[in-house]
Amino acid sequence: MRRFRRKLTLLLVCLLGAADGLATGVALVLQTDFGTKDGAVAAMKGVAVGVSPRLMIHDLSHENTPFDIWEAAYRLKQTASYWPAGTVFVSVVDPGVGSARKSIVLRTGSGHLFVGPDNGTWTLVAEDLGVAEVREIDTVQHLRAGSANSYTFHGRDLYVLVGAKLAAGQLTLAEVGPPLLGGVVRLPHEKARLANGVLLGGIPALDVRYGNVWTDIGESLLAELAPVPGERLRVRIDRGEATIYEGEMPYARTFADVPEGEPLLYLNSLMNVSFALNMDNFAARHDIASGADWRVRVEKVTP
Amino acid sequence: MRRFRRKLTLLLVCLLGAADGLATGVALVLQTDFGTKDGAVAAMKGVAVGVSPRLMIHDLSHENTPFDIWEAAYRLKQTASYWPAGTVFVSVVDPGVGSARKSIVLRTGSGHLFVGPDNGTWTLVAEDLGVAEVREIDTVQHLRAGSANSYTFHGRDLYVLVGAKLAAGQLTLAEVGPPLLGGVVRLPHEKARLANGVLLGGIPALDVRYGNVWTDIGESLLAELAPVPGERLRVRIDRGEATIYEGEMPYARTFADVPEGEPLLYLNSLMNVSFALNMDNFAARHDIASGADWRVRVEKVTP
Amino acid sequence: MRRFRRKLTLLLVCLLGAADGLATGVALVLQTDFGTKDGAVAAMKGVAVGVSPRLMIHDLSHENTPFDIWEAAYRLKQTASYWPAGTVFVSVVDPGVGSARKSIVLRTGSGHLFVGPDNGTWTLVAEDLGVAEVREIDTVQHLRAGSANSYTFHGRDLYVLVGAKLAAGQLTLAEVGPPLLGGVVRLPHEKARLANGVLLGGIPALDVRYGNVWTDIGESLLAELAPVPGERLRVRIDRGEATIYEGEMPYARTFADVPEGEPLLYLNSLMNVSFALNMDNFAARHDIASGADWRVRVEKVTP
Repeated sequence: MRRFRRKLTLLLVCLLGAADGLATGVALVLQTDFGTKDGAVAAMKGVAVGVSPRLMIHDLSHENTPFDIWEAAYRLKQTASYWPAGTVFVSVVDPGVGSARKSIVLRTGSGHLFVGPDNGTWTLVAEDLGVAEVREIDTVQHLRAGSANSYTFHGRDLYVLVGAKLAAGQLTLAEVGPPLLGGVVRLPHEKARLANGVLLGGIPALDVRYGNVWTDIGESLLAELAPVPGERLRVRIDRGEATIYEGEMPYARTFADVPEGEPLLYLNSLMNVSFALNMDNFAARHDIASGADWRVRVEKVTP
Repeated sequence: MRRFRRKLTLLLVCLLGAADGLATGVALVLQTDFGTKDGAVAAMKGVAVGVSPRLMIHDLSHENTPFDIWEAAYRLKQTASYWPAGTVFVSVVDPGVGSARKSIVLRTGSGHLFVGPDNGTWTLVAEDLGVAEVREIDTVQHLRAGSANSYTFHGRDLYVLVGAKLAAGQLTLAEVGPPLLGGVVRLPHEKARLANGVLLGGIPALDVRYGNVWTDIGESLLAELAPVPGERLRVRIDRGEATIYEGEMPYARTFADVPEGEPLLYLNSLMNVSFALNMDNFAARHDIASGADWRVRVEKVTP
Repeated sequence: MRRFRRKLTLLLVCLLGAADGLATGVALVLQTDFGTKDGAVAAMKGVAVGVSPRLMIHDLSHENTPFDIWEAAYRLKQTASYWPAGTVFVSVVDPGVGSARKSIVLRTGSGHLFVGPDNGTWTLVAEDLGVAEVREIDTVQHLRAGSANSYTFHGRDLYVLVGAKLAAGQLTLAEVGPPLLGGVVRLPHEKARLANGVLLGGIPALDVRYGNVWTDIGESLLAELAPVPGERLRVRIDRGEATIYEGEMPYARTFADVPEGEPLLYLNSLMNVSFALNMDNFAARHDIASGADWRVRVEKVTP
C-alpha cells in the first residue's frame, strides 16, 4: 500500500505540473497600431509569456492606422464575437498615452474581456455585446516591475501584463481595480436609418484588401426596403457636400452573381450592406474612403 | 481501498481535462489573400479557437496577391512538405466564393490535409505530394451555425471550422462529405524540359523579398545539362515574344561565391534553377516578374 | 490490487503522453528579413513543429530591412530582455549565407539563447545581456536531413532546427558543437557621451511607425546633464557634415505633455533620449533616418 501511495503522490505532482503548464486555455488576443517591423509587439508578447509560458497568444492586427481609434473599435466589432466567451482582448491604439485617460478592463454581456485605454476603443463592442462590468486598472499596483519611469508604452508595461494575468487565471476582475463609474468613453456616431424609402448610412470601414465598401446599414434595415434578389438599386456616395459616386447596381447574394468588373450591392460577412466590383476594386476605382464625413444613400430604382 | 479508488477517479478526471486541453498536437496552418490589416484572419482564428482552445494555429501567409490562385498553389508547394504528416492546411484564395466551385478536403499521399475551395489551389501539392483521397465538403451540414445567410466568407464560416475540427480530431475525413469524383481542379502549366542542350522553363514565382528569379527547372534536369560549378551559362528570359534579359553568369553554389552585385545561377531552397545578383535585386534591376507568359532558356556557353 | 496496478500503469502512460505533448514551455522566437509574403517563414515553422508539435513559436519580426544586420541587432536588444530566461531566439538576417561566416548559439548572462549566423547580429545583446557561453554549431551533424545540397537557406535547414531542439529540450548547448574561441563578431559602434555640457549620440533606429527618432543616449547620461521636466533643450541632428535639424524642445515625460504637433524630447520605452512631435511624425517632417552617419547633439539652452 505504501508504494502505491508514493506512486500516487508522484503522479499528482506530475499532473499538477502539467496542469500548470496548460494554464487555462483562455486565449489572449492583441491589437495595436505598432506594426510588426520593429520590436514593440514582440516585447509585449515576451511579457505575456513571462506570465505563463503556455498562454495561447493571437493577433487581431497590428496594422491599425496609427492613432485611428475608430478603426480599432470597428475591427474589434468585426472579430470579437467569433471568439469564445472568456477570451481576453488587449487593444492598444493609444495616442493619449501618459495623459489623464483612464485604463480599464471591460467585461461585455457576451463574457469577453477587453483591456486597454478608455479612449473610445470600446465604443462598438460595448454597443454590440453589452456592458456587464467595467473596472479601472489600479496602475500603481499593476504596472510592470521596473517600469515606473517608462511613460510611453503602457501596452507593454501595463495592458498586456494585466491581460495575460486575466487569461492565465492569475488575476480576477475584482483585483484589477475599482468599478469605473459613468461607463466607458463612446465615440459619437450616427445610426443608419430608413427615411422615405431611402436607406441612409455611413462607411465605417473598407474591406481594404479588395476595395469593397462596407456600410453600417444592417440586414434588418435592408429588409425594410425589401429589394428582391437581382433587383437594381440606386446608390449614391457623398463625402461632405460632394457626391463622389452615383450609379445603379443589382442586389446580389455574392460577387459571382454578376459579371467580372460589374458592381453589386450585397450583404458582407458582418451582414451589412456593401458595394463591390466583382474581381475589381470599387473603392480605388471610384476614390472612396471611410470615416465620419462619408455618407451613403440606397433606394429603389422604381419605388 | 475506497479512498484510493476515489483518488484514482479524481486523478482520471483531472487527466482527461488535461488531455482534452492538449487536443491532438496537430497543427492548423492558414493561408489567405486577406492581409492582416483588417479582422478577417482574426475572425477565422476565433472560430478555430472556439473548436479547441489549445489548437496550434500557424500562418503560412495572408499576403497572397488578391485572387492569385497560382501564387497560393506555389506557396503551398514551397512549404507543405516541411510540416509533419497530419498537418491541416486551410487555404482561402477564393475569387469564386458563392459560385458553383466546390469545397473540398484533400489528403495527399504524404498524409497532409488541405481544406478550401476546389479552384486550382491544390494543383501543385497534388502533383508533388500525390492524391490519396478527396472529399467534397457537405456545406449544408458543416456551415457554421448562424451563417446560413452569409455568402461571402466561407473562410470563416466553413473552411476554418472544418479544418479546426479535423486538426482537433473532432471530425474524420469520411464525415466531411462524399468522395469527390474526377479529381481536384488543376491549373494548366507547362513542364520544364531539356531540348537540344537547352533548358526551357518558366518563372512560377519570385523570391519577392530579395528579387531572386525562381524557375521550375529542377535539380535533376540541371544535372542532365551537367554544368560544373563555376562554369558560365547563357541565360535568356522572355516575356511573350519579347526578350527581357540576356546574359551570362556562373553556376554557383551560393550568393557569396560571386562578387557583390554580380549575377549567378544557383539551386534555390526548393532545388530549382534560380537567378540572382549577390546582395542586389535581379528582378527589379531587369524588370522581371513571374507568371504564365514568362519563359527562360539556359544553355552552355561552349556546348 | 492487480487492477489498481493496471490502472496506474495506464494512467502513467497517458500522463507521459501529455507531458511529452507539453514539451518544455520554452518559447522559440523567430526573427528574419524574409517578409511574410512568401513561404520561407512558414517552412521554418514547419520544421520546428516537426521537432515538437506543442512548441510555442512566436515572431519577433520578419520585416527586417533585407541584409540590415544592425537593425536586427537593435530589434533583438529592444525585445530580448522582456522574454523569460531560457527563451530561444533564432535570428536569420544572413547576407553571407553559404560563405565562411560561422553558425553559433550564444547564451547570454541573462540566460537567453540566440541561434544564427555569427555576422554581427549579436552585437547589442552580447553588450547588454553579457556573454555566458558561445558554441559553434557543428553543421555536418546538425544540418536537416536531406538538405546537404541546399546552400541558401540555413534558416530552415540549420538554425530553426537547432533552435527548436534546444527549446524542446532535445539538445543541450554542449551537443551543439565546440566552444567558439575569440567571442562573437561585433559591429563597431560609437558610444554616446557627455562632453562639455553637450550630449553626443547616434540614431540606432527610428520608431518607424510613428516617426519618433530614437538615440542611444541613455537615462543615466541624460541625468548627468540634469534637465528639469519642462526645461527647453537645444537639439541638433547631423548627417555626416550636413545639419539636418536644429531646434529647441522641452524635456517632457510623454507626448501628451506638449500640444499636438509640437516637438518634445523624452525617454522612450528603452529609456533612451528620443525626439517626437505629439500626434505627428518627426522623422518624416524633418527627413531624419537612422544609421552610422547620423549624429545628434543635445544641450541646455541656458547652460
